[in-house]
Amino acid sequence: MNEMGRRAKLASETLKCVSGEEKNALLLEIKKEIEKSRDMILSANASDVEAAKEVIKPSMIDRLTLNVKRIDAICASLEKVASLPDPTGVFDGWVRPNGLVIKRTRVPFGVIGIIYESRPNVTADSASLCLKSGNAVILRGGKEALASNAAIVRCIRAALKARSLPEDCVQLIESADREYTRCLLSLRGYCDLIIPRGSASLINFVRDNSEVPVIETGAGNCHVYVHEDADEDMALRILINAKTQRPSVCNAAENLLVHESVAGSFLPKAFQALTERGVEVRCDEKALAILPEAKSATEEDFFTEYDDLIISVKVVSSLEEAISHINSHNTKHSETIVTRSIAASERFSLAVDAACVYTNASTRFTDGEEFGFGAEIGISTGKLHARGPMGLAELTCVKYVISGDGQCRS
Amino acid sequence: MNEMGRRAKLASETLKCVSGEEKNALLLEIKKEIEKSRDMILSANASDVEAAKEVIKPSMIDRLTLNVKRIDAICASLEKVASLPDPTGVFDGWVRPNGLVIKRTRVPFGVIGIIYESRPNVTADSASLCLKSGNAVILRGGKEALASNAAIVRCIRAALKARSLPEDCVQLIESADREYTRCLLSLRGYCDLIIPRGSASLINFVRDNSEVPVIETGAGNCHVYVHEDADEDMALRILINAKTQRPSVCNAAENLLVHESVAGSFLPKAFQALTERGVEVRCDEKALAILPEAKSATEEDFFTEYDDLIISVKVVSSLEEAISHINSHNTKHSETIVTRSIAASERFSLAVDAACVYTNASTRFTDGEEFGFGAEIGISTGKLHARGPMGLAELTCVKYVISGDGQCRS
Repeated sequence: MNEMGRRAKLASETLKCVSGEEKNALLLEIKKEIEKSRDMILSANASDVEAAKEVIKPSMIDRLTLNVKRIDAICASLEKVASLPDPTGVFDGWVRPNGLVIKRTRVPFGVIGIIYESRPNVTADSASLCLKSGNAVILRGGKEALASNAAIVRCIRAALKARSLPEDCVQLIESADREYTRCLLSLRGYCDLIIPRGSASLINFVRDNSEVPVIETGAGNCHVYVHEDADEDMALRILINAKTQRPSVCNAAENLLVHESVAGSFLPKAFQALTERGVEVRCDEKALAILPEAKSATEEDFFTEYDDLIISVKVVSSLEEAISHINSHNTKHSETIVTRSIAASERFSLAVDAACVYTNASTRFTDGEEFGFGAEIGISTGKLHARGPMGLAELTCVKYVISGDGQCRS
Repeated sequence: MNEMGRRAKLASETLKCVSGEEKNALLLEIKKEIEKSRDMILSANASDVEAAKEVIKPSMIDRLTLNVKRIDAICASLEKVASLPDPTGVFDGWVRPNGLVIKRTRVPFGVIGIIYESRPNVTADSASLCLKSGNAVILRGGKEALASNAAIVRCIRAALKARSLPEDCVQLIESADREYTRCLLSLRGYCDLIIPRGSASLINFVRDNSEVPVIETGAGNCHVYVHEDADEDMALRILINAKTQRPSVCNAAENLLVHESVAGSFLPKAFQALTERGVEVRCDEKALAILPEAKSATEEDFFTEYDDLIISVKVVSSLEEAISHINSHNTKHSETIVTRSIAASERFSLAVDAACVYTNASTRFTDGEEFGFGAEIGISTGKLHARGPMGLAELTCVKYVISGDGQCRS
């Protein structure tokens, strides 16, 4: 691992000085290599899927499986990333009274470690975003996807070689041993940043064991709050979208909070719409009084990210109770209020502690693509460096470049 | 400690919603309280100094000592921070094709822990910058300054009370036991960020033991590189300024690199000017051949932040050798090249890995005040979130505030 770190650092010294045009040409070369190697990748993936069938559940098998359409999507994504503006370079600057010119620039971190689970398309996506932002990357994928990931990384390294760039700009840990993850997390001096992408247990393991700075991503215990003056039709549409449009993802809603003055009219409609879509509804005491046919929620439920067709429901007596409940139960991801009141919207937006706070919109919009970033490496739930959807700019750090004509400090 | 954390979090919920005007009024109230309590603070400080005399060295006693002038400086600094623009609020925004309005805002972190050593003025400075940026703060000062710090915090809390704000916005750990530092570093969920200010050993201890995100500050092994086409008079002025203007600080130069083609003419002049100012010169083999009267440097010397009147000197054969030496020995703080060549300046600025890279100017300008930030909480040598001088904006994090009229994701 130390040797991998050293090689990545060395490769990053070259990569950070490569022009935007050359990086885009590299991404298109990777696309060409992947297109050329379609059969090799599919066959490696087939062996992964075959081996995994006995050990993981069907929904995971679906995430693991590649097909022609998914490889096309990987290629389209490479082309897309190539078309995005280069995130590095000067973005701010000023001149001091003594004549010093201070430029604030974005530069690559250097080496980024990405630790993820079984979707092999993450391999190509992560590598392309790191390369585009000028970073070398060490990839640590799930053990079920090892052959698929290795096949994709072979294509990427062939493209690096074809463009006369160091192949070690992209390295894959080709062992299932968890000890390698631990080693990656200890590569201070070689690795500048670790981004875990995956389940809460993966993210917690990385955070608790890393000596390298980590950006935590993804945990999402999100809330929809229906305020006393909400447009109830709008609230219903937003609730159904946030809960059911794609329940397995981090920006899906897991909780419904309703003001007591509208609970009587709103909850029965919500219950019907949710149950029609197969959602199990778990209620606190007050909500249960209105919806006796629903299940009862435990305190634990309000801390749970179901990632499934289940929702917790709580009736609150005030906006302040809603805010305080959210701040003490959420994962600082995405929260929404449905209201007609500007004052309520402003108070909610100011007081709720989360990366993204919505008024009258679904939490499902917390996404790099939906924000207009063109790409996304993850959604940060930490406060340091990046918060919310992380695009290319979040894969860079600041560097001040200052020029003078002999200035000395007095 | 857990109780302190809980109280700080609670106070931060109020503080984050306080207006800029109210925060400024608070800072001026603190100033008033400190002016009023001058005698009480001086007498507390006198007892600290008396107790410390037997255990710490005279230069540290000077740092610990308060007098009327230093208290005036604390008051002036409070007034200055009050006059700076509020760092929180909307700073960017756009409208998506679906009509969603996305605003990027700066918000307080919540609770910040500041761990520092014996200068009592850091207590007032840190508290004022945290309050101005809307953060509650838990202060952990040096044990030698305990009485002084407690006296200053009493004034701050009196001002908070006078302005009807929670006193727990500012808390001081009033025990010398290091176990309390460990507890502060484990306050995940209550404390959002830790900033250590002080010696390398303090910073390393904090980084290695913290469960809360840390911004490392201050370690500075900085270089002056004299390129083959440098204006030698300018190079000499910059070298002397960077090394001797204030040798004890992190942005002072610790190393001189000279291109071999100018070493013969430059080094004797540099040696004379440095030794005249009491600087001990430690040379690598090539430099020693030119300066036989100088001392010899070990490999260790080139990794050392002396913070003293000592400098390491190395002769290099190329710009690339200078860059590679810097990148493998520096602490990513501040580096400068003296050159007339635009190409050399650009290559140096791109390839050197540091928060601040200078051309033809002293490294001593790496400072919030000198950059025009008006105030500084420290100089980050990490890459995450903040790099280089940290002003008020660096004490905030991003929050997206999004508003719609019922948008759902399809």
